[in-house]
Amino acid sequence: MAGNSFGKIFRMTTFGESHGEGVGVVVDGCPPRIKLLPEDFKKDMARRKPGTYHLGTPRKEDDQVEILSGVFEGLTTGTPITLFIRNRDVQSPPYEILRDLFRPGHADYTYFKKYGHFDFRGGGRSSARETAARVAAGVVARKVLVPARVKVAAYTLELGGVRAKEVDMEAVGKNPCYCPDPVAAEQMEMALSRARAGGDSLGGIIEVRVKGCPPGLGEPVFDKLDADLARAVMSVGAVKGVEIGAGFEAARLKGSENNDPLTPDGFGANRSGGILGGISNGDEIVIRAAVKPVPSIKKEQDTIDRQGRPAKLRLEGRHDTSAVPRMVPVLEAMVRIVIADHYLRAKAIG
Amino acid sequence: MAGNSFGKIFRMTTFGESHGEGVGVVVDGCPPRIKLLPEDFKKDMARRKPGTYHLGTPRKEDDQVEILSGVFEGLTTGTPITLFIRNRDVQSPPYEILRDLFRPGHADYTYFKKYGHFDFRGGGRSSARETAARVAAGVVARKVLVPARVKVAAYTLELGGVRAKEVDMEAVGKNPCYCPDPVAAEQMEMALSRARAGGDSLGGIIEVRVKGCPPGLGEPVFDKLDADLARAVMSVGAVKGVEIGAGFEAARLKGSENNDPLTPDGFGANRSGGILGGISNGDEIVIRAAVKPVPSIKKEQDTIDRQGRPAKLRLEGRHDTSAVPRMVPVLEAMVRIVIADHYLRAKAIG
Amino acid sequence: MAGNSFGKIFRMTTFGESHGEGVGVVVDGCPPRIKLLPEDFKKDMARRKPGTYHLGTPRKEDDQVEILSGVFEGLTTGTPITLFIRNRDVQSPPYEILRDLFRPGHADYTYFKKYGHFDFRGGGRSSARETAARVAAGVVARKVLVPARVKVAAYTLELGGVRAKEVDMEAVGKNPCYCPDPVAAEQMEMALSRARAGGDSLGGIIEVRVKGCPPGLGEPVFDKLDADLARAVMSVGAVKGVEIGAGFEAARLKGSENNDPLTPDGFGANRSGGILGGISNGDEIVIRAAVKPVPSIKKEQDTIDRQGRPAKLRLEGRHDTSAVPRMVPVLEAMVRIVIADHYLRAKAIG
Amino acid sequence: MAGNSFGKIFRMTTFGESHGEGVGVVVDGCPPRIKLLPEDFKKDMARRKPGTYHLGTPRKEDDQVEILSGVFEGLTTGTPITLFIRNRDVQSPPYEILRDLFRPGHADYTYFKKYGHFDFRGGGRSSARETAARVAAGVVARKVLVPARVKVAAYTLELGGVRAKEVDMEAVGKNPCYCPDPVAAEQMEMALSRARAGGDSLGGIIEVRVKGCPPGLGEPVFDKLDADLARAVMSVGAVKGVEIGAGFEAARLKGSENNDPLTPDGFGANRSGGILGGISNGDEIVIRAAVKPVPSIKKEQDTIDRQGRPAKLRLEGRHDTSAVPRMVPVLEAMVRIVIADHYLRAKAIG
Repeated sequence: MAGNSFGKIFRMTTFGESHGEGVGVVVDGCPPRIKLLPEDFKKDMARRKPGTYHLGTPRKEDDQVEILSGVFEGLTTGTPITLFIRNRDVQSPPYEILRDLFRPGHADYTYFKKYGHFDFRGGGRSSARETAARVAAGVVARKVLVPARVKVAAYTLELGGVRAKEVDMEAVGKNPCYCPDPVAAEQMEMALSRARAGGDSLGGIIEVRVKGCPPGLGEPVFDKLDADLARAVMSVGAVKGVEIGAGFEAARLKGSENNDPLTPDGFGANRSGGILGGISNGDEIVIRAAVKPVPSIKKEQDTIDRQGRPAKLRLEGRHDTSAVPRMVPVLEAMVRIVIADHYLRAKAIG
Repeated sequence: MAGNSFGKIFRMTTFGESHGEGVGVVVDGCPPRIKLLPEDFKKDMARRKPGTYHLGTPRKEDDQVEILSGVFEGLTTGTPITLFIRNRDVQSPPYEILRDLFRPGHADYTYFKKYGHFDFRGGGRSSARETAARVAAGVVARKVLVPARVKVAAYTLELGGVRAKEVDMEAVGKNPCYCPDPVAAEQMEMALSRARAGGDSLGGIIEVRVKGCPPGLGEPVFDKLDADLARAVMSVGAVKGVEIGAGFEAARLKGSENNDPLTPDGFGANRSGGILGGISNGDEIVIRAAVKPVPSIKKEQDTIDRQGRPAKLRLEGRHDTSAVPRMVPVLEAMVRIVIADHYLRAKAIG
Repeated sequence: MAGNSFGKIFRMTTFGESHGEGVGVVVDGCPPRIKLLPEDFKKDMARRKPGTYHLGTPRKEDDQVEILSGVFEGLTTGTPITLFIRNRDVQSPPYEILRDLFRPGHADYTYFKKYGHFDFRGGGRSSARETAARVAAGVVARKVLVPARVKVAAYTLELGGVRAKEVDMEAVGKNPCYCPDPVAAEQMEMALSRARAGGDSLGGIIEVRVKGCPPGLGEPVFDKLDADLARAVMSVGAVKGVEIGAGFEAARLKGSENNDPLTPDGFGANRSGGILGGISNGDEIVIRAAVKPVPSIKKEQDTIDRQGRPAKLRLEGRHDTSAVPRMVPVLEAMVRIVIADHYLRAKAIG
Repeated sequence: MAGNSFGKIFRMTTFGESHGEGVGVVVDGCPPRIKLLPEDFKKDMARRKPGTYHLGTPRKEDDQVEILSGVFEGLTTGTPITLFIRNRDVQSPPYEILRDLFRPGHADYTYFKKYGHFDFRGGGRSSARETAARVAAGVVARKVLVPARVKVAAYTLELGGVRAKEVDMEAVGKNPCYCPDPVAAEQMEMALSRARAGGDSLGGIIEVRVKGCPPGLGEPVFDKLDADLARAVMSVGAVKGVEIGAGFEAARLKGSENNDPLTPDGFGANRSGGILGGISNGDEIVIRAAVKPVPSIKKEQDTIDRQGRPAKLRLEGRHDTSAVPRMVPVLEAMVRIVIADHYLRAKAIG
């Protein structure tokens, strides 16, 4: 057990469920004397919230982060920082009908098999609600990285088959899909509308870029930077694939095409995605994650109940049509947390 | 630092370099009273060796595994098992010319940036030679999984753009590419010949399947089974992407297409790849890894020396034309190790 | 950093400070389906509270444990259990004069040296207040051990030089010193009165006994049961020594005197304290901890300020005359947590 | 399981048994570019060897340390350093009679209960032979601490009831008991002679002192420096008690007597043993360990066999009359390893 912690020096432990008291995180290993206030979390928490109705759930989560420990007079103390986000808009009624049925594509069945029960009120621990704690921890990680001048940014590269043709970071915050291509953004919104109208859902691809990462981060052979990034990204629910740099495309290139030449002015290309031998090379780090479509759909589905008997299920209520936009700040946070951890780890040797 | 260990209950620590005394692994956490003899390693170690000249390097590595600890009267004792594989065919001369130049696509540059030096004799710790230790640990993991009746098998799904059209597990051991499709296997060999003739190298995709995995393995939210598999696979040099089940394809499906229906006889499809919410669901686990082309090529490449001055590099000597076939048993071992670890972890709760 | 977690399978992370929002603990690794309610904590939390004025501080801490996560419908879910105890009786004023002076015997100076600051409001993280979280986690550990029928009990063996002559477990709960010898208990109270009258404080020795521990717990060579117990006990503030079984007395015995003979009915003596080679032998486990006198005394002391200038300090306000009674449930909890962790670890092998 | 690793940044994993191939250690986390040669180990390994016959066993162990990995051109590389010490003088015959009997005071019984077997050839993994690996790792730790100017030294404070009256560090290396008081050293030797003549054995107390330790090492609340030292020391076989500073004596002092005053020139006393709140205070760190008498004695003892039937046992052959002298370098190594780990950990924050 004990699988709810991540990181070695900058180490977080998340806790909480979708329909309990709330979700939270203990960050152990944050250096002391860093300014940290409740308002520092607002922007990131808001990005995780559904922007508009047609993007997904109208559920209003006023995700306020309480600092329960680790900060004194506005400064981190070097002791564990506990961040807690209360659940506010918890409605039990609609979930009662799910008490006995496993929702396809969700973790109900596997939790039941593992733990002997499942939280029929929306997944409990397996709910995407848990990622709010990760985003909060990511805010702390950003502060840790300030002296290193590392910048992490994520966006929706693809949604419902619509792919961004250009990457304009200015555009990302200006559309509800967090897409860096304004034209593609509109097409993504249309795809979402169509899917929602059909009672269906969409997946997509998120790309995360790390600028300014110093060379030398990553600890071979198992705590390689790319290995830790892969674990971090894959640990987010709904992610089914991870790529670094050229990723799966590299499998079809020749060595002469894939090798990035070294020049006195840096690397002549970046198919490696900024990581060689599991260690950052100083170039931009590029990660992509494949996100499956939200499994909660309004179409009728085949399933079974706790006794294994066949049943039909049609999910009502509010659900995101795609998890992709809300996961953009989550994946950004996870990448930031990995970089912060390795940044501190590297200092132990220097 | 301290990044050379993997696993929580079944925990391995690998050590060693390509041109030092040898490579090895300490397996801590193997249950006692399991038969383990030096000959148990032969078959797997041989699979990691290049089968024939045209597949790659003619270097003869007689990879004999010495058991340095943890076995008494042919049985594991429950104490650390140390496996050591001496380097036998170590030739320093050809590498001397590399003393000052960073090989593109290799870890020379990043090791130099991180540690202040790099092992110009073939990569040292970053060499693929390190994976021999992983394969040896995988043999122990297989023994741990015997009572669980779990079977792990890997093969080359794609090489140099040639993709297997069918999966006949009988065929895998009968061709040097470890391809499950005899027709594709021949095309892969031809692609290798062409690449070698051109002084170039090829990448590919390896698929690993786990049959008989009991439901309930994996520890949310960070030690999810898929997250640990992603880390395990990405920690192998040359891997640039990992997919579970439908993987990147899931990003383009709708929820109604991607959800696997539950039926009284099991899941009606397996786009999840046997894992839901980070926990095994009892269905077959399917993982794919993208392997980049071997960076050591005979074509001339641009690089720099330790002082940052531009240089031209043309690598001579023996090199694999593709790492893919030799990595098949390595990825199989890594997946087996992850499953063995989670199998033992699950017993702690039961 | 990241030193606020303890245990491998049953793993707790404590957080919080004496004068912040509160203290708490995340328990990761508790098996699912165990009944756990807020009232389960009352008795242990009350034992940690000062019983009567003359025993120590009159400060009223109504230590109510809130369950923030991990319990659904009154049962543990297998996911992280977060327990939070709000600080209620926090008064800042009396501490203001300590803003610049390091209290002798406290952690003010070392926290300042390590973190660049110290919490002058009563120690912050280094306050004994932190142990409330450990006691709460110990309640969960007790529940984990129910199926194993393990019983852990602690008491004051010595206080202010007064030593219990007999061990009557019935007597422990009937006197404010938690002493198992009613006669010694009265002498201890008198010693406390005298020390308090003199503005001074007392130390003592706490003994913890584990009955019914199955043989086979403990993982050589570094996670030996006695090594983990020593760490657990020494990690509690004010503990300066730990003994197992005969302890320091064993240093003066001969082998023929110290060896416990084995007989068909069990061990013929228990100088080993129930642990051989770091593994429980099935006999009673006996641990003793030396507790130093409370450093907060009303006598004038020499100290320095933040600038290193000499100063005189006389502490006013409420302080325990001895930490020993309040630490009895704390050490009991720590021992229980160690046993619970190793109990679950042993299941992973079986 | 997996209890054979120690440390977080400077992390060692020991392996091996008394009568197998040898014992060894993997040190993961040693900084790169430190000179390390096989001859660096000679002096420490020799100190662990029995000096003269009358001190103990005449067994000749030529403990040569092979460096199997992690060093290139005489410098550490930052990758795992594997040190191996082959067993040379292994004689099986004398142990055959022990195949069925558990030796009192040894781990035979508990290993049998835990693992289903025990190594009747001298304890196997539970043998003191394992400590050779710790001493080897301690040599690496010493090198790590060179830039910090930390000096760790241990000696026999008490043996067979004879206590050193003075501490002359020059004297330590000049007598086979490693006693810092030449007069007491002679009395210790006489006590050993008497015990040996009677077929018995002796215990004692070892003191370890750390000079020059910078303030700020130790990570509250569970990885406190004293907690980690207690675990490190208690993890060495035969240790039954650990004290820091005043230790058990502190339990009988008043606060006014036990508090170390702070002055502009440092602490006015050192009853804390150099650690406050789990963090080093810059003063000398003082640790004492109680070592039980060697359980292997020539006197007849009561025991049982594997079937639980009563039996008599009289051990023949070579055995140390006391483990104390040989454990002096072992405890010194363990303390050094703890300090090195925390020294590197502290760098991660700075």
